Amino acid sequence: MTRSFLNLSYVSVLACLHSAPHVQAGEGMWLFNDLPHEILKQEYDFDPTQEWADHIMLSSVRFSSGGSASFVSSNGLVITNHHVAADTLHKLSTPESNYYENGFLAAGPENELKAPDLELNQLVSIQDVTDRVNDAVADDLDAEESHKARRAAMSVIEQESLDETGLRSDVITLFGGAKYHLYRYKKYTDVRLVWAPESSAAFFGGDMDNFEFPRYNMDVTMFRVYEDGKPAKIDHYLKWSEHGAGDGEVVFVSGNPARTDRGLTTAALKTLRDNSLPSYLDYLCRMEVAIQQFCYQSPEHQRRGQDELFGIQNSRKAITGMLVGLQNPKFLAEKTTREEELLAKVRANPELEHYAEAWQEVADVQPEKRALLNGGVDFRERYYEIAKELVLMAQEDQKPSEDRLREFSDSGRESLEHELFSPATIYDDLEVAKLSSQLSMFVEQRGGDDPLVVTALDGKNPFERAAQLIGESQLNRVEYRRELAEGGVEAIKSSQDPMIQFFRSLEKEYRARRKKKESLEEIERQAYSQIEEARVAVEGTSGYPDATFTLRLSFGVVKGYEEDGRDVPPWTTFAGAFAHQAAHEAKKPWILPPSWNEAKSRIDLKTPLNFVSTADIIGGNSGSPVVNRAGEFVGIIFDGNIQSLTADYMYDDAVSRAVSVHSSGIREALRSIYNAEELADQLGK
Amino acid sequence: MTRSFLNLSYVSVLACLHSAPHVQAGEGMWLFNDLPHEILKQEYDFDPTQEWADHIMLSSVRFSSGGSASFVSSNGLVITNHHVAADTLHKLSTPESNYYENGFLAAGPENELKAPDLELNQLVSIQDVTDRVNDAVADDLDAEESHKARRAAMSVIEQESLDETGLRSDVITLFGGAKYHLYRYKKYTDVRLVWAPESSAAFFGGDMDNFEFPRYNMDVTMFRVYEDGKPAKIDHYLKWSEHGAGDGEVVFVSGNPARTDRGLTTAALKTLRDNSLPSYLDYLCRMEVAIQQFCYQSPEHQRRGQDELFGIQNSRKAITGMLVGLQNPKFLAEKTTREEELLAKVRANPELEHYAEAWQEVADVQPEKRALLNGGVDFRERYYEIAKELVLMAQEDQKPSEDRLREFSDSGRESLEHELFSPATIYDDLEVAKLSSQLSMFVEQRGGDDPLVVTALDGKNPFERAAQLIGESQLNRVEYRRELAEGGVEAIKSSQDPMIQFFRSLEKEYRARRKKKESLEEIERQAYSQIEEARVAVEGTSGYPDATFTLRLSFGVVKGYEEDGRDVPPWTTFAGAFAHQAAHEAKKPWILPPSWNEAKSRIDLKTPLNFVSTADIIGGNSGSPVVNRAGEFVGIIFDGNIQSLTADYMYDDAVSRAVSVHSSGIREALRSIYNAEELADQLGK
Repeated sequence: MTRSFLNLSYVSVLACLHSAPHVQAGEGMWLFNDLPHEILKQEYDFDPTQEWADHIMLSSVRFSSGGSASFVSSNGLVITNHHVAADTLHKLSTPESNYYENGFLAAGPENELKAPDLELNQLVSIQDVTDRVNDAVADDLDAEESHKARRAAMSVIEQESLDETGLRSDVITLFGGAKYHLYRYKKYTDVRLVWAPESSAAFFGGDMDNFEFPRYNMDVTMFRVYEDGKPAKIDHYLKWSEHGAGDGEVVFVSGNPARTDRGLTTAALKTLRDNSLPSYLDYLCRMEVAIQQFCYQSPEHQRRGQDELFGIQNSRKAITGMLVGLQNPKFLAEKTTREEELLAKVRANPELEHYAEAWQEVADVQPEKRALLNGGVDFRERYYEIAKELVLMAQEDQKPSEDRLREFSDSGRESLEHELFSPATIYDDLEVAKLSSQLSMFVEQRGGDDPLVVTALDGKNPFERAAQLIGESQLNRVEYRRELAEGGVEAIKSSQDPMIQFFRSLEKEYRARRKKKESLEEIERQAYSQIEEARVAVEGTSGYPDATFTLRLSFGVVKGYEEDGRDVPPWTTFAGAFAHQAAHEAKKPWILPPSWNEAKSRIDLKTPLNFVSTADIIGGNSGSPVVNRAGEFVGIIFDGNIQSLTADYMYDDAVSRAVSVHSSGIREALRSIYNAEELADQLGK
Repeated sequence: MTRSFLNLSYVSVLACLHSAPHVQAGEGMWLFNDLPHEILKQEYDFDPTQEWADHIMLSSVRFSSGGSASFVSSNGLVITNHHVAADTLHKLSTPESNYYENGFLAAGPENELKAPDLELNQLVSIQDVTDRVNDAVADDLDAEESHKARRAAMSVIEQESLDETGLRSDVITLFGGAKYHLYRYKKYTDVRLVWAPESSAAFFGGDMDNFEFPRYNMDVTMFRVYEDGKPAKIDHYLKWSEHGAGDGEVVFVSGNPARTDRGLTTAALKTLRDNSLPSYLDYLCRMEVAIQQFCYQSPEHQRRGQDELFGIQNSRKAITGMLVGLQNPKFLAEKTTREEELLAKVRANPELEHYAEAWQEVADVQPEKRALLNGGVDFRERYYEIAKELVLMAQEDQKPSEDRLREFSDSGRESLEHELFSPATIYDDLEVAKLSSQLSMFVEQRGGDDPLVVTALDGKNPFERAAQLIGESQLNRVEYRRELAEGGVEAIKSSQDPMIQFFRSLEKEYRARRKKKESLEEIERQAYSQIEEARVAVEGTSGYPDATFTLRLSFGVVKGYEEDGRDVPPWTTFAGAFAHQAAHEAKKPWILPPSWNEAKSRIDLKTPLNFVSTADIIGGNSGSPVVNRAGEFVGIIFDGNIQSLTADYMYDDAVSRAVSVHSSGIREALRSIYNAEELADQLGK
C-alpha cells in the first residue's frame, strides 16, 4: 500500500533535484511539459505526441487527501485505490453499515453516496513563472525576508490566476528552487462513491503482505464526479484495454508522486539517516502500539481506529525499509563518490568554483534542522488541527493575502474551508488516544520542567489532559467552527473552548518554530538552486525534478525479477489468490471475503490479478493509471515492492518494482464476483 | 502480569532507600531480619514469632530467571506463575508439543519434564556484613578505586561463605549503600515441570487485560524440585488454606520484588522521567513492532516469538503506566516538597548540614548518566550474550576472583555456567529479527559515520549483518561453547566465529561504558548512604530499603477499591470468567480454553478465582505466595492493577492493588477442569 507520505512534518519535505547522467532505463518522474523524448525514442522507440500527452494529463486526477486516480468513463467515473478511498469509506460508514469492511455497490446513480469532504483536482495547464518569482526576491534580503518576498510573489501569481480563470492555481517549487511552475486545476467537490470491494479483498494479506510481491489485491474503488447535481460529462478519459499489457511491454504511469529526496546532498542525507527518519520511526512505533491497543478493545473500536492504524503501519513499514537502505554503508558511499566527482569538476572550473559554497551552505543548516526535529507543537489530532487552523486563520486574515502563511491565502480558501467544515464524524475516544500519546512524547522530548510543558499539561498527566481538552471542546460541531471562523480574532479571543485556548497557549511556539523552519528551507532552496545550476553546467541537462505531489509521467516495462535466488514472475492470477489463502490456512489477514469464495467457480481463474513493472513510483502514486502506448488503461498502481522503498533516494531497476492491479482483473471481479455488469460496461466508454 | 524488570539496563537499577514517616498502612517491602513488629501489632494486632518468620522465609523460593514461588508440599512441589514459567515452557516445547499454549500434566513422577536451565534459590540465612564491606574502602580512594575495593571485599566475603557452607552466597547492597547483607541460598537445579494450564487460561484477556482488574486468570504452574534424581524432601512448605482469606483479612506476601526507586532524589527522578524511561519505551515499542511482525508470519513463528513478545508488551505497558505517573506534575511536586522539608531540617542543624552535599552529588552525576543511555553495546540477543560472556570470562579468569567483573567471581560460577551451557533451542530467525532491530537502533543512536558503527556493520545493512553473524555462528552448539570456555583466552583469540569476533570488536567500548557506569553508581551509592544517615538522624528510623530482587515480606488487607465512581469488589469467580468471555463474544484474547468450556457444568462457579489486596508489590513479586496469619497458602500474586504501576516511586493504598489467584480457585481448577485430583491432594501435605 503506497500511501502518500504527505504531511510528514517529521521528515524534510524540501523538493530537490536529480543528476541526469545516472538515469536508468525505467527511471524518472517526468514533468508533462518536459517529457524525455530522446530517452523514450531510444529505449522504447516511442515518441509521444502533444495530443497523447495532453490526453493522459487531462485524464489524470489527484485526490487532495493524498493519492492519484483517473477518469475512466465519459459519465464521470473515477478509479482509484481502495486505500486512497479508505478515509472516505470510513467517513461514510457507521457501526451499522461498514462500507470499508464490507464493500459497497450503488444500485444506480441515485444510490451513489456523496463523500463529506473529498476534493479531486484535474491538472489543466502548466506555466513557467520562474523569472517572476525570482525577480521578486532582491539580492540583499536575508533568509527570512527572502522567504517572505518569495511567498508573497507566489501568492500574487496564484491570486491573479484564480481571478482570471476561476481555477485552483498553485505555484510549485521544482528542482529545489531552480524553477517555479504555475499549475492550474479544475476542482471537483461533489464526489460520490460508486463501488468498493471488501477490505479483505482490497488489503488481502494485510500489513504482512504490504510492500511484498507476489500479491493478490483488489485495491480498487470507484467514485463518480458530479456537476450541478448530475454526473459530470468528461471529455478526456481513458479507454479500457481489451487485454492489458504483455510481458516486456512498455507502460506509462501518470500520477502524483509525493516526495523524493534524490537530489539531497550527502550532508542532508545523513540528517535523514541519523535524525529525521529515526525520530519519525520512534513516533510511528509509539503511535502504532497506542492505536493498536485502542483497536483491540472491541469491534467498534477496531472500526473507528483501523484506517489510522493501517496508515501508521504503512508508514512504519516504508520508513523501516528506507532507513535500512540508508544505513547500508554502500549507499552513502556511492552518493558520496558521485558528489565528490561533481564537486571536483565544479572546483576545477574557475567559472563554476563559486558554486561549491552551495554544498557547504546545505551542510551548515543541518544542525539547526536537527534541533527542530523534536519537541514541536504539531500534534496530529483532529480537534487540535481544527483549533490551530481557526486561530491562525483569524490572525492571518488581518493581513493582505500575499503576506499570510501560505495555506491561508485567498486563492486556497475554498479548499481549506471544504476540509475545515467537513461534517465527517470525529470519534472522541480515538482522538484522546492519539493526543495523549503525543502529549506524552511532547513531555519526554522537552522535559517535564519545561515551562511550555508545564503550561500545556495544566497540572494533569497527559492522558487526563487529553481527555479534558477533547471532552470539553465544542469543535466537533461544524456550526461552532463556522461561528468562530466568521467571528474572526474577537471570537477566538473570547472563546472559552479549551482546545482553542490550548492552541493559543502554544501559538507563539508554533509560529517561532515554523518561521525558523521556513528560513532554513529558504537557505536550502537557494543553495539547491545553485547546485542545480552547477550540475546543468557540468552535465548539460537537468533531468527530472524531485517529486512534489504534482502530476508526473513515469514509464517502464512489465518485468519480473529475482529474489533470494528465485525468479519472481511479473503476474499473479485469481487462482494464485485462492492458493495464497489456502497456504495460510485462511487465517487473518489471509481470508478472502465470502463473495470471492462463493464466486470461485464462476471466476475465470487464469485472469491476471496483479502485475509488476519497472516504472519509477513512490508514495502518492497510489491509484495512478497505468496506460499503454495507445493511451489505454491497463492497470492501476497500488504499491511498490519492499526493494523499491529506497526509491526515495535512488532508483534501481534491478529489483525495484511498481505493483498494479490488472485491468482485466478489475473487469473480471466486477462481472464474476460483484454482479456489477452495468458498471463494468461503463468502463472506458 | 507482573514480570520481573530485571536486566533492564536501560533503566537505573541502583537500589535506594525510603522515608519511613510517610509509610502507609499497607506499605513496605520489609527485610526478614528487620520486620516492622510495631506496625504489625498496631495495625493488625499481630506479632509474628521468629519461628513464623523463619517458616515463611524457608518456604519461599526464588526463580533466578526472575520471579518468586513457594514450596507447597513435603515432596518438593513448587508453585509459581505461568508467566514466570513461560520461558521454561517454551524451552520444553516443540512444534509438535506446545506445552506453553496447550498446557501439561505429568501422569506420574516419571513423566515430569526436566527444565533445561532453571535454578531455584531458597534463602536460608541473612547476615549483616556492612562494617566489613565499608572498612575495605579507604577514605582517600576515587570513585573507580572505591568501587573496585568494595567489589573485591564483597567477592571475598562471598567466596569465604561458599567455601564454608557450600551455599550460594550473595552480598546485597541495601539502602543505596548504607547497609550490606550476606544472603545464603540453597540451590535447586534439577527442576521438573508437573502441571501447567493452557496459556489461554493463564493469560485470559491477554495484553488487553494485563494490569487490569477484575481479572479471571489461572496464572499458575507447578514444578517439583529433585535431589539425587528423586523428589526432594522439603521440611518447610506452606499448608493449603481450607477457604482462603476473607474480605478485610490481613495477608502477607513473601517474595522477591525486583526494583523500586522510592528513595531517589528529585534530580534522579527527573532523569527517569525525561530520559531513561522514554528511551526505554522507544526501545520497547520498536521491539514490540518488530517481534509482532515476526510472529504474524506463521503459527510456528508465533510459537517461537510469543514469550519474547509478551515480555516486551508487559514491560511496555508497565513503563507506559510508570511514565504517565511521573509525568503528572503533582507527583514530582509532592516529592519536591518532601525533599525540601528534609533538606531544610538538615541545613538547619549544624551537625547535619554537611549531609546536604549528598543531594548535590546525586544531581551532579545525572548528566553523565543520561549520556550513557543510548548508543551502548548491550544487545539483548542470545548469540551476542553468549559471545559476550565467553569473551569476558576468558579475560576475567586471568585475574584473582575478587578483582573480576562481579558476575565472573568463583562463587557465582556454577550458576553462570548453568545458564551459559543451557541446551535450550535457539531459533535463528527470531534472533535475527531481534539483533537486526537493535543494530538499526545502534546505528541511529551513534550515527552512521561513527567509527564503531562502521566496524560493527562491516559494509552491510543491519539486517544483512545480523543474518550473517547469526547464520555463520557456531554458538548455538553447547559443545562449542564449552570448548571455548575451556580454551580460555587462546581459544577466544583464535576463534573464527563471527559473533565472537563481533563482540571482540566491541569489547573495549563495552568495558569503557561499564566502568563509567559503575563509577557513577559508586558516587551515587556513597551519596545515598549519606542521605540515609541524614534521614535517620532527622526522622529517627530507617524503614525498609528499596527492592533488590531479594526476599521481602509485604502485607495488607483483602480489599476492593473505587474506579471511575464504581465500586470494584475484591473477588472474582469462575462464573465471572465465563461472563467475561461472553461479554467479548469469545474473541481473542478472551477465549477460555476448550477444557474450561467443556468442564463448565462440573465447576462450582461460585469458587473465588482472583482477588486483590493492598499488599505492596512490584515486578519480581510474580509467583509470591500470599499467606494468612496462620502461615497458610491463600493465594499467589500474579499482577498489580494499573494504578499500582507508580509503586516503583511511591506507594498509595487508595487504589493501588496486588492481584492474586485464589487458593480455592487453583484447587477447584485442578479437580474439576484438569482431572488432576492426585496433584490437588498433594497440596499443603
